[in-house]
Amino acid sequence: MTSAARPDRWQADPAAGLAGGVDGPDLVRRLAGVALDAAATGARDRGGPVPAGGPDAVARAVRAACPDVLPEEGAGAEAALTAVLRALAAGAADPADPLCAAHLHGPPLAVAAAADLVASMINPSMDSWDQAPAATELERLVTAAVADLAYPGRPSADAVVTTGATESNLVALLLARERAAAPVHLVCSDEAHHSVPRAAWLLGLPTPVTVPTRDGRLRPDDLAAALDRTSGPHVVAATAGTTSRGIVDPLPAIAEVAATYRAHLHVDAAYGGGVLFSDTRRGLLAGLDRADTVALDLHKLGWQPLAAGLLAVADGTLLAPLALRADYLNADDDTGAGLPDLLGRSLRTSRRPDVVKIATTFLALGRAGLGRLTDRCCAAAEDAAGQIDRRPGLRLLSRPELSTVLFRPVAADRLGDRTGDELVAGIRRSLLSSGRAVLGRATVPGPAGRGRLWLKLTLLNPHVTGADLTRLLDLVEQAADRLTRAPRGVADGASTAE
Amino acid sequence: MTSAARPDRWQADPAAGLAGGVDGPDLVRRLAGVALDAAATGARDRGGPVPAGGPDAVARAVRAACPDVLPEEGAGAEAALTAVLRALAAGAADPADPLCAAHLHGPPLAVAAAADLVASMINPSMDSWDQAPAATELERLVTAAVADLAYPGRPSADAVVTTGATESNLVALLLARERAAAPVHLVCSDEAHHSVPRAAWLLGLPTPVTVPTRDGRLRPDDLAAALDRTSGPHVVAATAGTTSRGIVDPLPAIAEVAATYRAHLHVDAAYGGGVLFSDTRRGLLAGLDRADTVALDLHKLGWQPLAAGLLAVADGTLLAPLALRADYLNADDDTGAGLPDLLGRSLRTSRRPDVVKIATTFLALGRAGLGRLTDRCCAAAEDAAGQIDRRPGLRLLSRPELSTVLFRPVAADRLGDRTGDELVAGIRRSLLSSGRAVLGRATVPGPAGRGRLWLKLTLLNPHVTGADLTRLLDLVEQAADRLTRAPRGVADGASTAE
Repeated sequence: MTSAARPDRWQADPAAGLAGGVDGPDLVRRLAGVALDAAATGARDRGGPVPAGGPDAVARAVRAACPDVLPEEGAGAEAALTAVLRALAAGAADPADPLCAAHLHGPPLAVAAAADLVASMINPSMDSWDQAPAATELERLVTAAVADLAYPGRPSADAVVTTGATESNLVALLLARERAAAPVHLVCSDEAHHSVPRAAWLLGLPTPVTVPTRDGRLRPDDLAAALDRTSGPHVVAATAGTTSRGIVDPLPAIAEVAATYRAHLHVDAAYGGGVLFSDTRRGLLAGLDRADTVALDLHKLGWQPLAAGLLAVADGTLLAPLALRADYLNADDDTGAGLPDLLGRSLRTSRRPDVVKIATTFLALGRAGLGRLTDRCCAAAEDAAGQIDRRPGLRLLSRPELSTVLFRPVAADRLGDRTGDELVAGIRRSLLSSGRAVLGRATVPGPAGRGRLWLKLTLLNPHVTGADLTRLLDLVEQAADRLTRAPRGVADGASTAE
Repeated sequence: MTSAARPDRWQADPAAGLAGGVDGPDLVRRLAGVALDAAATGARDRGGPVPAGGPDAVARAVRAACPDVLPEEGAGAEAALTAVLRALAAGAADPADPLCAAHLHGPPLAVAAAADLVASMINPSMDSWDQAPAATELERLVTAAVADLAYPGRPSADAVVTTGATESNLVALLLARERAAAPVHLVCSDEAHHSVPRAAWLLGLPTPVTVPTRDGRLRPDDLAAALDRTSGPHVVAATAGTTSRGIVDPLPAIAEVAATYRAHLHVDAAYGGGVLFSDTRRGLLAGLDRADTVALDLHKLGWQPLAAGLLAVADGTLLAPLALRADYLNADDDTGAGLPDLLGRSLRTSRRPDVVKIATTFLALGRAGLGRLTDRCCAAAEDAAGQIDRRPGLRLLSRPELSTVLFRPVAADRLGDRTGDELVAGIRRSLLSSGRAVLGRATVPGPAGRGRLWLKLTLLNPHVTGADLTRLLDLVEQAADRLTRAPRGVADGASTAE
């Protein structure tokens, strides 16, 4: 029995006090109180979804709070927490605010943030059992549960934890590369996330083949034609929930095509994977379990603080190329004596235990509870689409499939292509720089094939209400009016705080 | 002015409550209190550096606390926090305990953990300004400060944030690959971290050339000979603080050799980089600023919760290959209007703001305060080495350079090579499985070239005392006595909880 605490020293200098040990929790409780006060004050300072004034004003405020981030002598724990965290909160684009709806950038659950605090304190590192005894088993439980979500009832399925779908897509392509006897060609749609072709570049694969989508969706016949034109072996990357439109590619038909060409099928379900929790919407992902590998992000529809990525694999033996031996972490005699070997579970070495917050959230809400949160986000998107349809000044692109809604002011349609796009971009920047709302943007091919710019709502906040959406759409229409009346043109929204 | 709060709903179901917004901090405060109570109870349950009983016992305890990690209906926030976090803490190998000294696995500072909580709550994602306005500027300040630590007074220097040296080493090799006109050959020592050759494999580079070390150190003449034998272009990876022995390669002479061969010089200073904070020890890293790229890990000597990796570059233009355009994150007209472009700062897309905890720690302790913590770890290693030297039953390999101490019982030397190694491995597993201490291990070439196993202390806890070290060495000697007297041999430490 040992005591990790040196309370005498910590009272003299709390900045040097440790978070762990028997007495760490008391010091963390005190300092977390200071941190939370600073966060609350900063949120009140901000008073909206995002600070007004744009990049220069925010940068000035941060530098004023923190004129020398690494001074010669420290300011002490409480002063530092107050200065940095108040500035951080005052200058945040807070996804918990209903008017912050631009990106696949979710508002974390309080229960997950609280659990993550203890992960930070104890700091298990997932590269060896003797750094993470209990966390090793927690990770096993969580990855098994996630594998069963993606591949229900498949005993061979497994999952590994990543920093997000960008890493999941990389590992998926790596596994495809390593199982192939010749250089593997990536075939994906023009709506695949940029991290998919970027992974091919990173891994030294041949130049990817891009298949144009129609209405944002990869068509199986177009995919087959592309595979026909490209020498194998192939890895096909489909998307369940595209970034720009939230569209789910037709997975059963794509799986058929991939099987015909003996391609490794990877599905990037970073966004759409969240519907696996929902009884009413799970069917949208039918066919997902025919993929060899599936990318999932629980920091999107899963409400985890970053990061909470996973890669599920249909067959755990696919993970073999990740195996690695390092004497100090998984020596043969140690694994022979029963110590679990964790090194082959990641491309990283030291690794934060992201499963701690995930396990706590899973247990707190259950599958059905998470499904209800997903349903609320999707219902909010349907509500927003309906409200847009009923407004003569706005035009809806299409009914939402997940929780993404694309729309534009009809005033933009009446202007030329370029000026219309400038109006759309200007509305977004004007609302952002004035601190009123954070909207996304997406380019969508028009009837003549030329891309036109649309406003995008990505609704990941399960507590958003119809009234919030009404307010958001009012702001868009007001900004459109203001900018179409503005004498100087419409494209300079970012520099004009109003 | 909007309100992100739905307190009515959260009171009904705190598990679904958000961490952000104006009222999030109050819910987080309540749930963090539950989390901290669970962590404190778990630490008391454990009562030592690591739970007794080995992997099976720990796994059983976790499964008992959490028999179904994803139940159909949830258990609620407080029950989930209590169950998961008490089991996590009870089953932790806590680096804040002085007898947990195996790995480059640091005990986090309470101030950093408290700051990281607010990062989790607000959840800025570092891939676009409109997800992370203030965090963008904080990251700029921190990376500039770190670049100036590695490259003092060099205006061209820059740094990017990574998940740790494994990713830093990968990015360094990627930058070397992209600036070379032909496939680049990696040349590194046999003491380079495994992530260095693994990065070459990932990137599709030619098979690396490994240079044998002498006494754990890369010799410049051996490096020159290897470069001579290998066609260019080359990337040389040196180490400032090896994982097994904490040795700093002779950087000035290596930089000379690299310059002669026009090689990209990368230094993995994941461990040794911590001495940059210290007035008395900074000289150990003389020559570091001649490297093209430097990997640093502030979750080692820097006392951050995972992850806090950085890659410093001598010239920011080296980072150009990371540039990427994605219309939804950094459209030309947005960057033209003054919105910062963050995509080219990482291989990741969504990215946790690890700079929040780093900035807070830097400000709380200052450079000198961090230097004093580094000095205390290095002084503890010198103390341990002295104590080992004075014990007739133990043998010290060599004086520590950083904070790593290798030693073995003289009883192991008296046994044959294989049986001696079994004794060393058995001592480590016996102390681990009985919950008494967590020690590391390292294989070191003997006089005849054959590797022999040593016990390793990696001292990253600045609060460890001489009395703690005495207790740790007593435990080692007692275990050695017990195992040499054991009738069944010495290699079965892991399965025997005593």
